Amino acid sequence: MKQTIAVLGPGSWGTALAQVLAENGHDVRIWGNNEAQINEINTYHTNRHYLPDIKIHASIRGENELATAIDGADAILFVVPTKAIRVVAQEFVEKVKNKPLIIHASKGLEQGTHKRISEVLCEEIPSDKRQGVVVLSGPSHAEEVAVHDITTITAASEDINEATYVQNLFMNEYFRIYTNTDIIGVEMGAALKNIIAIGAGAIHGLGFGDDAKAAIMTRGLAEISRLGVAMGADPLTFIGLSGVGDLIVTCTSVHSRNWRAGNLLGKGHNLQEVLDNMGMIVEGVSTTKAAIELAHQVKVEMPITETIYSVLYEGKDIQTAAKEIMLRDGKVENEFSPN
Amino acid sequence: MKQTIAVLGPGSWGTALAQVLAENGHDVRIWGNNEAQINEINTYHTNRHYLPDIKIHASIRGENELATAIDGADAILFVVPTKAIRVVAQEFVEKVKNKPLIIHASKGLEQGTHKRISEVLCEEIPSDKRQGVVVLSGPSHAEEVAVHDITTITAASEDINEATYVQNLFMNEYFRIYTNTDIIGVEMGAALKNIIAIGAGAIHGLGFGDDAKAAIMTRGLAEISRLGVAMGADPLTFIGLSGVGDLIVTCTSVHSRNWRAGNLLGKGHNLQEVLDNMGMIVEGVSTTKAAIELAHQVKVEMPITETIYSVLYEGKDIQTAAKEIMLRDGKVENEFSPN
Repeated sequence: MKQTIAVLGPGSWGTALAQVLAENGHDVRIWGNNEAQINEINTYHTNRHYLPDIKIHASIRGENELATAIDGADAILFVVPTKAIRVVAQEFVEKVKNKPLIIHASKGLEQGTHKRISEVLCEEIPSDKRQGVVVLSGPSHAEEVAVHDITTITAASEDINEATYVQNLFMNEYFRIYTNTDIIGVEMGAALKNIIAIGAGAIHGLGFGDDAKAAIMTRGLAEISRLGVAMGADPLTFIGLSGVGDLIVTCTSVHSRNWRAGNLLGKGHNLQEVLDNMGMIVEGVSTTKAAIELAHQVKVEMPITETIYSVLYEGKDIQTAAKEIMLRDGKVENEFSPN
Repeated sequence: MKQTIAVLGPGSWGTALAQVLAENGHDVRIWGNNEAQINEINTYHTNRHYLPDIKIHASIRGENELATAIDGADAILFVVPTKAIRVVAQEFVEKVKNKPLIIHASKGLEQGTHKRISEVLCEEIPSDKRQGVVVLSGPSHAEEVAVHDITTITAASEDINEATYVQNLFMNEYFRIYTNTDIIGVEMGAALKNIIAIGAGAIHGLGFGDDAKAAIMTRGLAEISRLGVAMGADPLTFIGLSGVGDLIVTCTSVHSRNWRAGNLLGKGHNLQEVLDNMGMIVEGVSTTKAAIELAHQVKVEMPITETIYSVLYEGKDIQTAAKEIMLRDGKVENEFSPN
């Protein structure tokens, strides 16, 4: 059945998701602050800065006014940067008049509080102004979705019926959705995998080969799972699309900012040089700090993350760091099983 | 403490593992049928056909006589092709005089019986002629190990002490071993991942992008885990080095025969053309057949493997096959969890 959806955040991922919804026959509004960008969407049906070469579906309506965008919507899709989630949620609460489902497709942990995005959304939006919260996450480049390349992602919610509703909203012949009820695991995987992408880039920059790359991805997955489990996640979620799937895309694509930042570190640049060179936010850098603080709180061992932290924030030589991590004592592989 | 190890099979992986053991100070013999090859190892300390450009450790002794090679060895490392395991084990039983530990580093399922390699070894070698069986498996190119690139693998045995013994034999500053007691999961992952590598190659050959590649790897991992669990494996083993780690190396390396075979399929060649073009055994092709037979026996759903089977053995058009698999009903992501 045709639904009305407000997409908050006209970046590349928000635009690609809006496009999927419109192509599936839904009524879609996309909200953003930038007046010129919204005019471009409404007049020329393009969003060239974020999705060059893509013709945006004619039925998608750009909105600068949040109140107009969300008016009567069945569901609201938050796709704003992690640091903007709280303030956009606050503005939403002031203006919403019905009780829509909340979906988000952002990846990260809030700075300072280390909260997951669904936690921030639930904190800010009282339950009389919303249904539940569903997270969308998985291995996906907006550019590939926009050209109908095959993509699979996860829709996670504590309430399986709400996850299934979101699955039905988005699913079509090029976009396949799997449901999951482990929202903690899905959000933790999405945020933490960027740390491992920095590590995989560094391994490449240091000149190591495929074995070492598979090693850091696999043992990295083990330690982000360990932190996730300590925070309440199901370890098996990390074997899924939002875990290993997203890790694979992020660690094997030269388009990943986190991977590129790690590659520069591996070649011997320090953090400031890397950030100057990138000229944009590298989420994994702040997530590394958040993860280390969380890991110390809940007493979880994260040797790869600790190593990346020491290189990023304590100026440790990366060659020495790589050597030290190989010389640790022998370990048992799987700490969740009765091995 | 210095141990005496007989490596059976002087291919690239057997030679690389022999080299690690010799560099760790052990007494190593390597056995093979090919007299010229063994002479080359003893005279020139090279094995050019399998590991070009590598100088073999001077202490490694090549042997054509199995009885001499295994005489007094503390452990025997089988690294022969899957189809040769049973016959070499039979010859070993005739000639062994002590009771060594058995290690194997082969990947596959026996044709016809669908048995794991450790099952074949235990069937053929009576328990008064051996200690337990330990499996070595993980993301590893022999060429990278031989040049001391960083590599991590798993040593799995029902007996953790035997796995730890093998960990200590091999571990050094470039070769890191993790122990595991789920031998079923480790062997099933090692064998079945080749099927998914064919699929990942096919996705590439069909012209799909990174999202689709991550999708087939992740959903492929889900279904090989499902079959593994039905055979008695721990699902979490598939998140480890012998599961996702080996899958990553096999699916992202153009050196993988299985990936290359899949790539040719994706470009529209049929099985016979692919095999003619490759000019060597592609293990995943026969493993696909074995997996489908097993899956039908234990009633496990393997949609990706079924699709690859229909393309390989039933001449199904690969474009049609790829489309059909995307149009299946929506699914729950993780069937092992109480979702």
